[in-house]
Amino acid sequence: MNIYQYDKSKEWFQRAVKVIPCGVYGHFSPAPYAPVEAYPFFSDKAEGARFWDVDGNEFIDYMCAYGPMVLGYHHPEVEAAFQKQISISDANTVASPRMVELAEFLCEMIPVADWAFFARNGADVTNMAVMVARAATGRDKIIAIKGGYHGTSPWMQAPGHHGTIADDHDHLFRIPWNDLEALDRILAEHGSQIAAFMASPFHHPIFEDNALPADGYWQQVVDKMHENGSVVIVDDVRAGFRLHMGGSNEHYGFKPDMIAFSKAIANGHALSALVGTDDLKVDAAKVFHTGSFWYCAGSFAAALACLNILKAEDGPARMRMLGEKLTGGLRDLASSHGYTMIVSGEPALPYLRLADDETLMLQQAWCGECTRRGAFFTSHHNWFLSTAHTEDDIEKTLQIADEAFKAVKKQFGS
Amino acid sequence: MNIYQYDKSKEWFQRAVKVIPCGVYGHFSPAPYAPVEAYPFFSDKAEGARFWDVDGNEFIDYMCAYGPMVLGYHHPEVEAAFQKQISISDANTVASPRMVELAEFLCEMIPVADWAFFARNGADVTNMAVMVARAATGRDKIIAIKGGYHGTSPWMQAPGHHGTIADDHDHLFRIPWNDLEALDRILAEHGSQIAAFMASPFHHPIFEDNALPADGYWQQVVDKMHENGSVVIVDDVRAGFRLHMGGSNEHYGFKPDMIAFSKAIANGHALSALVGTDDLKVDAAKVFHTGSFWYCAGSFAAALACLNILKAEDGPARMRMLGEKLTGGLRDLASSHGYTMIVSGEPALPYLRLADDETLMLQQAWCGECTRRGAFFTSHHNWFLSTAHTEDDIEKTLQIADEAFKAVKKQFGS
Repeated sequence: MNIYQYDKSKEWFQRAVKVIPCGVYGHFSPAPYAPVEAYPFFSDKAEGARFWDVDGNEFIDYMCAYGPMVLGYHHPEVEAAFQKQISISDANTVASPRMVELAEFLCEMIPVADWAFFARNGADVTNMAVMVARAATGRDKIIAIKGGYHGTSPWMQAPGHHGTIADDHDHLFRIPWNDLEALDRILAEHGSQIAAFMASPFHHPIFEDNALPADGYWQQVVDKMHENGSVVIVDDVRAGFRLHMGGSNEHYGFKPDMIAFSKAIANGHALSALVGTDDLKVDAAKVFHTGSFWYCAGSFAAALACLNILKAEDGPARMRMLGEKLTGGLRDLASSHGYTMIVSGEPALPYLRLADDETLMLQQAWCGECTRRGAFFTSHHNWFLSTAHTEDDIEKTLQIADEAFKAVKKQFGS
Repeated sequence: MNIYQYDKSKEWFQRAVKVIPCGVYGHFSPAPYAPVEAYPFFSDKAEGARFWDVDGNEFIDYMCAYGPMVLGYHHPEVEAAFQKQISISDANTVASPRMVELAEFLCEMIPVADWAFFARNGADVTNMAVMVARAATGRDKIIAIKGGYHGTSPWMQAPGHHGTIADDHDHLFRIPWNDLEALDRILAEHGSQIAAFMASPFHHPIFEDNALPADGYWQQVVDKMHENGSVVIVDDVRAGFRLHMGGSNEHYGFKPDMIAFSKAIANGHALSALVGTDDLKVDAAKVFHTGSFWYCAGSFAAALACLNILKAEDGPARMRMLGEKLTGGLRDLASSHGYTMIVSGEPALPYLRLADDETLMLQQAWCGECTRRGAFFTSHHNWFLSTAHTEDDIEKTLQIADEAFKAVKKQFGS
């Protein structure tokens, strides 16, 4: 099996570090916790479930652009809808009918949605949700989950991160996931100040096993927050449209007051959406939140196409099936090599780690060995399936993983 | 002259208000300070310097999508570059070489730029600039200008706006534009806490005459801030690439530490950039700020094409010439009808208002009468020129304005 080399990626990276802080920043950064020599840094070709790096190496892509790609890169029907729209109007001085059509579509498909509001980044709409909750309740404070991610606005970052200040976190309580007693304690002490509870539908931190909601957890959260006059916000930016077309909350059987979507909504075209109930519509109208490109019409057309296809083909069921095959196969394979693979979260965006690996070096080495053989895995972040992945892709990935286990066994022993 | 009707726009708006808070929100909202019956709400066609609303009415567009359109809608070379890129890769799991090329291009063209960082919204990079300044100085507080606009993050909004909380403004001092004494007072009292001064290159508030920097103002600001160990941030999101290709600060002859760009950078494709000096590169690298779509490559290719064309054709000079013809013509025309037109700001993005109009009703009525005859003007926001506007367009606009003056004279008397 060919072991990839990344000479051209390295050349581009040398150019990049001269003119870009870090060279490649943010979640695309060559992770400080990965064997960087095993990873490509630059690509100029992506199609279906694959991308090719600038050295020409081919990868089955299990990060899907960190979520946005859900039907396969460059999906013909989504691209046709996008092209048709931008050929007549994209950026414009007045709004597009496509925005209305997309809002109507979301309100029809998503039980919680009586209205929709659109922006570009996931964090645009998680921030909007908090502003609406504050406007609606006249309260300041937010309850979120320890390790929960809602974007990189300073108040959402971990205290002490560069560029944040101590006061950024003054109005945020972080409690453990699935911990109703912790919620009760905050409500008992600060109830009258709590505007909202915000969390992802299941807990998908980095560097940590992902965790599903315990039986009845969400319904109790909703009941307690409503009793307290507070708002429930689901941040479905990462998981949205991979578990259920009506919002991931439907997969778990509960109804929040607002849901934030982005990533998979338009198969890679930049768009985010906040949907909510009628009770919050007037407050949402009063909050001023806007951006230069939030009315660009191409992404609305792409979203209509993407969501229609996902719905018609039951994309969430397909991604669950593929994810189960992949994670089940990897678990069996690990076992056959004398390792234990811990699989957590949801099959459509699973989190995997090798057990008995306190330094994390085993997991990192194994992901690197898979990547340099053509199955792109990151070490400590959930992966993503798409409907474009095939059972053959999974089969090929398991063969790669088999070789990778042999390689790490040689390096680490069993 | 045909007076436009907006029946289909109204129908779409009736659909919109059912599923979208406000129907049309943010800066696209049918302004509470405009005669809404004079304005179209929806469009599905834009080309060159014009858009057509859903009723088929044609408008010479002096808002340019509120800035992003700078070469004309659907510019063939920009679109060709964009199409070429997205046909091979747009959203992707690893970075694009186009990002490096664009960073290199900006560092070559913009004297202040030793590095570049990219995001989607203008506010993404004004926020990033503040985080970098705080990381670099270890200080919390920001000085900005009263009425200055840097996006809709809660801390940037006016206190009391729906969804903001009192503490959002704890670390912000707002001082009047061109007021060095006010700056001295803040520095004397809080100097050791000041991370940065942030302002647009010239003052372009809404509902107020725009104001150029007084002679020597910016150089004194830079000197005082540097002496204080603080950082100078220019928010060039709105004016950028309409005054000078090296950043609007070059037009006024001073050098800040960071400049935020967006709007016109890619002729309508969603992109923003922060550039800065070498002194701040390490701190910029340490700040974690990222978004799901910040690596989409199509917008980098569009920006390279757009900026190359603007530079080759000296777009800023053309927009200045066109703006001077338009504003000079309107001033003369107003005078011939017995009105006084006050022109402020910069010709490429001028601010106009009719004098002796305390209730603002005259300005609003006149803009409405122009719009319903085919020259799209908003009442209390600066307008934008593009290189696609022609001298014939200006001539036609002056004819429309002449009719509009007659109409408001009939309504208001002279």
